[in-house]
Amino acid sequence: MKHLVKMSDLSTIEIQQLLDEAERFERGESWKTEGDQFVANLFFEPSTRTRFSFEVAEKRLGLQVVNFEATNSSVQKGESLYDTVKTLESIGIDALIIRHTEDNYFEKLISKINIPIINAGDGCGHHPTQSLLDLYTIRKEYGRFHGLNIVIVGDIRHSRVAKSNAETLTRLGANVYFSGPREWIDENNPNGTYIELDQGIEKADVVMLLRIQHERHGEKNGLTALEYHKQFGLTLEREARMKPGSIIMHPAPVNRDVEIADSLVECERSRIFQQMKNGVFVRMAVLKEVMTSNKGEIGKWQQYLKMGSF
Amino acid sequence: MKHLVKMSDLSTIEIQQLLDEAERFERGESWKTEGDQFVANLFFEPSTRTRFSFEVAEKRLGLQVVNFEATNSSVQKGESLYDTVKTLESIGIDALIIRHTEDNYFEKLISKINIPIINAGDGCGHHPTQSLLDLYTIRKEYGRFHGLNIVIVGDIRHSRVAKSNAETLTRLGANVYFSGPREWIDENNPNGTYIELDQGIEKADVVMLLRIQHERHGEKNGLTALEYHKQFGLTLEREARMKPGSIIMHPAPVNRDVEIADSLVECERSRIFQQMKNGVFVRMAVLKEVMTSNKGEIGKWQQYLKMGSF
Amino acid sequence: MKHLVKMSDLSTIEIQQLLDEAERFERGESWKTEGDQFVANLFFEPSTRTRFSFEVAEKRLGLQVVNFEATNSSVQKGESLYDTVKTLESIGIDALIIRHTEDNYFEKLISKINIPIINAGDGCGHHPTQSLLDLYTIRKEYGRFHGLNIVIVGDIRHSRVAKSNAETLTRLGANVYFSGPREWIDENNPNGTYIELDQGIEKADVVMLLRIQHERHGEKNGLTALEYHKQFGLTLEREARMKPGSIIMHPAPVNRDVEIADSLVECERSRIFQQMKNGVFVRMAVLKEVMTSNKGEIGKWQQYLKMGSF
Repeated sequence: MKHLVKMSDLSTIEIQQLLDEAERFERGESWKTEGDQFVANLFFEPSTRTRFSFEVAEKRLGLQVVNFEATNSSVQKGESLYDTVKTLESIGIDALIIRHTEDNYFEKLISKINIPIINAGDGCGHHPTQSLLDLYTIRKEYGRFHGLNIVIVGDIRHSRVAKSNAETLTRLGANVYFSGPREWIDENNPNGTYIELDQGIEKADVVMLLRIQHERHGEKNGLTALEYHKQFGLTLEREARMKPGSIIMHPAPVNRDVEIADSLVECERSRIFQQMKNGVFVRMAVLKEVMTSNKGEIGKWQQYLKMGSF
Repeated sequence: MKHLVKMSDLSTIEIQQLLDEAERFERGESWKTEGDQFVANLFFEPSTRTRFSFEVAEKRLGLQVVNFEATNSSVQKGESLYDTVKTLESIGIDALIIRHTEDNYFEKLISKINIPIINAGDGCGHHPTQSLLDLYTIRKEYGRFHGLNIVIVGDIRHSRVAKSNAETLTRLGANVYFSGPREWIDENNPNGTYIELDQGIEKADVVMLLRIQHERHGEKNGLTALEYHKQFGLTLEREARMKPGSIIMHPAPVNRDVEIADSLVECERSRIFQQMKNGVFVRMAVLKEVMTSNKGEIGKWQQYLKMGSF
Repeated sequence: MKHLVKMSDLSTIEIQQLLDEAERFERGESWKTEGDQFVANLFFEPSTRTRFSFEVAEKRLGLQVVNFEATNSSVQKGESLYDTVKTLESIGIDALIIRHTEDNYFEKLISKINIPIINAGDGCGHHPTQSLLDLYTIRKEYGRFHGLNIVIVGDIRHSRVAKSNAETLTRLGANVYFSGPREWIDENNPNGTYIELDQGIEKADVVMLLRIQHERHGEKNGLTALEYHKQFGLTLEREARMKPGSIIMHPAPVNRDVEIADSLVECERSRIFQQMKNGVFVRMAVLKEVMTSNKGEIGKWQQYLKMGSF
């Protein structure tokens, strides 16, 4: 694995191997990089979970970390993403974690950049480590994906998580359903079928709620928060009708009493904060994989350094 | 000590023990945490001294540090303090340093959060590590608190430092006086008595100046900076009338020529920059105490991790 | 070397020694500081290259790093640069890297501050580590400075790099020429002579392009980007007339198709990204020099610490 920019680049075997590796880290297995290896976190959008989850993962692996924030950088002077990334490569950064507002920002980079890029979210596009931590959470619960009913609820059309998860879960044998406002369902998405929420709730092994992205929409499809909650949210009544043992997931940050009733956020079925915990193990696995499988090239670069011929 | 949120939670014995520990660190004693332990600094208000003093203290103890800034985080998406803190706990942070604009923000957190919180300032409320470093500075000078005359000058009513210090110094046997504009004196505060500045100056073993908080008031009680300085500031004339050996303290940042004449900031009596130096040792002591006395619980969490049952 | 604030403070021997040290670092030689030594990066202007180049250099030397950003600090409360710097010294920072908008900001500091300051750019003044990396890049190419024709193109009058480089290169025996809009040439600068760009291009061993500083000018001397490029930029046509083996340099960030044609940024002659790479080695050399030559004093401070007499 050179880069990790989207889930569809990973085979199901590679996915299972990454989840296995994450499990070893959760069990307490330790692995540290040798010598000084540098990772840069480039976040062009605000983030708490993903940003700090990566930083903790990086430091647990013994990586040296530099945190790039667009507001204090030469991006203010109009520098392009490519030039910024090339700069970081030039000063000796060994891997990049990037979140950017632009869909598929990485397409322009990966052919020209010699260090691995891990996509931490691109516009309405992809967010592969979020998908992996979702998969990890499900596998941890059920030990399998095959035959599980996963109901994804919310703005399927704009959610980077929904699209990646639907595609991957379908590949892994799960039955994916989409629910929420009809205008937000992508009818052309072949990896899931529409289901009424009250029907989906009863069928689901996993209810996967999506965040209402105020910062993208400015409104909830014309509904007030309360109306949205009643029609498309996980209310106390709906939770009571879920199957025994079925679980609730949400990528967070949660809008309490909108996507989910406040008191359900930490209920017994909820895996919301466990997802965050799992995120660290999954990111450690991805980082280890990326740092080791690019070893050859990195070694080469370091040799160039020694030869002074780079 | 699970958390450190306000001075009144500490017994006088605990206070003396923390100051003893700080003294050992000042003398050069070293103590490092074992394995990777993570601390997050969450500052919702600007800060230089407190923020960097904590970061230096943390790193001297071998802690892994992540710096959370509200402006680049999901707080921008409306995430609550509780959810932010719970997130950081979930991703494996072992202790939190928090400064927040809201008085007593920690009340809502401490019952629900399993990791220690060190309060680095809440609104007009508390700032226990500032109090501890002030106590340390006084004890270093006089070797005791009993019988000392401490004159606190400025906006007693809104100062988090004034209130904590007055309460603690009174408990420790010092005589606390308040001075400054009458409107800023809290008549209901039982831990100090009002004194005219010119009288207080001559009586004081410690003149403890408070910062005029432009960012909270916008004005200095209707006075110009020059008028304030003449009436309630430490002028050259007043300093000349201080007792031999008595000292000047200020939590900083100083408004030069307002609370104190510019040339007195680094005069022989001034302990202003020494207070900052002492702050690092005091914070090392607090961090060590918090990290070790919660060891049981943290160990448990790590065991859960290994069992995969969390 | 106590501080490094401007190139004219360095003798030619000191310059060559720093470049030799940088070369050793490039060859893979390792040197780590002993114990916990702290460096603070204070950037009052946006920066990518310089800021991260320093951070990587610091971490490669095993230094503990704190990153100060004006926007989240007490500078917001009106704290002066002196008080900020004195604060960082008080809390135990061993060296400061400062970029500031004000010309010669360091003059007010160096007599009063006991820890070394490395200037990372002051207003339109100096930027010594950029000069050193430029020198390193040239020496690496030609093995000497004597007799080389260096043509500096752009806003000589406002460029901190241009002034330092012209002075130093002249001292080292190179022939320095200035080119670009006549209004931007400083006729009083004794360290270079004006040359028409098309003549300079053919004569140059090094074409050193300067960045158009939109953030300072707001305009390009009344010209559109295209007009500037045609008249004063390195076009494909001009590059074709350069001498065999001659090289192109630019401190970056580059305005593509303004100072230089987009496709030339990574052409064979270009050393632009190599300059960035070299910057890390040069900064490691400067940091090592500053940390070791101040060792006496730092040691003294640590002794004071132990004696508790500071």
